[in-house]
Amino acid sequence: MKCRKCREAAVIEIRRHNAAFCRDCFLEHCNRQVAKAIKEHDMCLEREHILVAISGGKDSLALWAILTDLGYATSGLYIDLGIGEYSERSHKFAVDFANTRNLELKIVDLTEDAGFDVSGGARSSHRPPCSVCGISKRHWFNKVASEGGFDAIATGHNLDDESATLLGNLLHWQVEYVARQGAVLPATNDGFVRKIKPLIRLGERETAAYCVLSGIDYIVDECPMAAGNTGLAYKAALSVLEDFSPGTRQMFLGGFLSHGRERFFGADEEVRLVSCRVCASPTPAADDAECAYCRLKPKSRHSGFSDG
Amino acid sequence: MKCRKCREAAVIEIRRHNAAFCRDCFLEHCNRQVAKAIKEHDMCLEREHILVAISGGKDSLALWAILTDLGYATSGLYIDLGIGEYSERSHKFAVDFANTRNLELKIVDLTEDAGFDVSGGARSSHRPPCSVCGISKRHWFNKVASEGGFDAIATGHNLDDESATLLGNLLHWQVEYVARQGAVLPATNDGFVRKIKPLIRLGERETAAYCVLSGIDYIVDECPMAAGNTGLAYKAALSVLEDFSPGTRQMFLGGFLSHGRERFFGADEEVRLVSCRVCASPTPAADDAECAYCRLKPKSRHSGFSDG
Repeated sequence: MKCRKCREAAVIEIRRHNAAFCRDCFLEHCNRQVAKAIKEHDMCLEREHILVAISGGKDSLALWAILTDLGYATSGLYIDLGIGEYSERSHKFAVDFANTRNLELKIVDLTEDAGFDVSGGARSSHRPPCSVCGISKRHWFNKVASEGGFDAIATGHNLDDESATLLGNLLHWQVEYVARQGAVLPATNDGFVRKIKPLIRLGERETAAYCVLSGIDYIVDECPMAAGNTGLAYKAALSVLEDFSPGTRQMFLGGFLSHGRERFFGADEEVRLVSCRVCASPTPAADDAECAYCRLKPKSRHSGFSDG
Repeated sequence: MKCRKCREAAVIEIRRHNAAFCRDCFLEHCNRQVAKAIKEHDMCLEREHILVAISGGKDSLALWAILTDLGYATSGLYIDLGIGEYSERSHKFAVDFANTRNLELKIVDLTEDAGFDVSGGARSSHRPPCSVCGISKRHWFNKVASEGGFDAIATGHNLDDESATLLGNLLHWQVEYVARQGAVLPATNDGFVRKIKPLIRLGERETAAYCVLSGIDYIVDECPMAAGNTGLAYKAALSVLEDFSPGTRQMFLGGFLSHGRERFFGADEEVRLVSCRVCASPTPAADDAECAYCRLKPKSRHSGFSDG
């Protein structure tokens, strides 16, 4: 198997592109795919300052490396979710990467800065841990980006993640979620910083290979809280389809973004937003004007009553 | 395992209903599911005369049996597609069922009545055999129903078929096909008879069990022309999801029919239809006013030129 670009021995084959690459041409291929996604979806401009959401995993570290390679001014933000050894180890991978590349890494410690960890938030809010994690990350990424004057928040959602999310939302016909899913979520007047997903043209096999081939150490374990997550079933179903017809994921997500999504415009407009009475973030009026994040915090009036 | 209805020993478990049934209660359950689908989607009225599309397989024979049980006036239509031994055997199963139940079975022989079989039509039109089969069936079912004064054509599309078709159309974002997919396709002024799919609440495992438990012999083999059909990949992917979360197919298709489909309304309106200049059926204006079916027929001016 030879590299499509330089005809040297290839180290990786990518069936959906009907191509194989040597190490250097593969890393360049990844950079090009990210540059293409950014351009195709008008994600950001060259001079903009980007806050990269860092988990210590393959996707976020590959994303940070590629954005830096492409010349973007970036800082990382790592959120320590307080998930025991998993958080300790992923924290270390994030710090090591930033130090090696001499990049700025901001750190939020949920237990110290918010007063609860993911398990505690799940207990007090009766939400699943994955939901508490998502709400907390969204809150803190936006807060740090907004206060730090960043133009955009880049997250490591890859092609496999985004196509699985889309499949899950369509299987349930959650049309308001489908309407809101995009490669770019624009900034809003009420304080939301633009969010971008530059990895939507790369699968997770490719971000893993990118890290391995460029010497980036990352946490390989899945988060222990995510075991049995339905997202894994959506990914497995899409793997069956991808094996049968390579390129299915890219066709599915690409077609959605280019002409499927417009069918769902307006499906999320029925929700009227008001300012959270605690932190002023936008929140649906039906939720008593307290946003999902603020409702995660343990209430002092509830002290002593948790877990019966 | 006991029957949910009568507490006798169960013979089949249906995970998505969290239920098991004995033979008699299972057959009754199938009848109820079909009655429910018909009512839910206003498929047909009690006094209407229904032409049932019969292939000799489990779905169409179960459908015919259930519609008869429910008291509908039905005739069957079997189309001999000229696919060698497969057609001979399925033909015999259809005739045997009709004779045993004393039901009227109409028969079209594609080779005799149309002048080509599926392979011949595929050669002369350069279409895949499955496409030729679908076009020919649509043409003849509609012709026989229309000329015979039938109120509706009932087809054996089951829950697995319909959810797989929907998944395939969404993966490709073929929005005009999504818009056209429904439990009922209404009659049109230009000669299309109403089409209904009364089996959309039953999976193929259930239609097979219905036949086995009620003593209906059917052709078990898949059509030899369908091997490698992408529809099988969509079904495999949905099986992964159904195993993970029983009821996924029904939720997916049910949600689509109740509130997803409306998002696609209008997506199929850009196609302007004209009358086929050969048979007068409606056909897209772009196709030189000759419908897909009429273009399958071998042209005399092409004689001797086929297959080089």
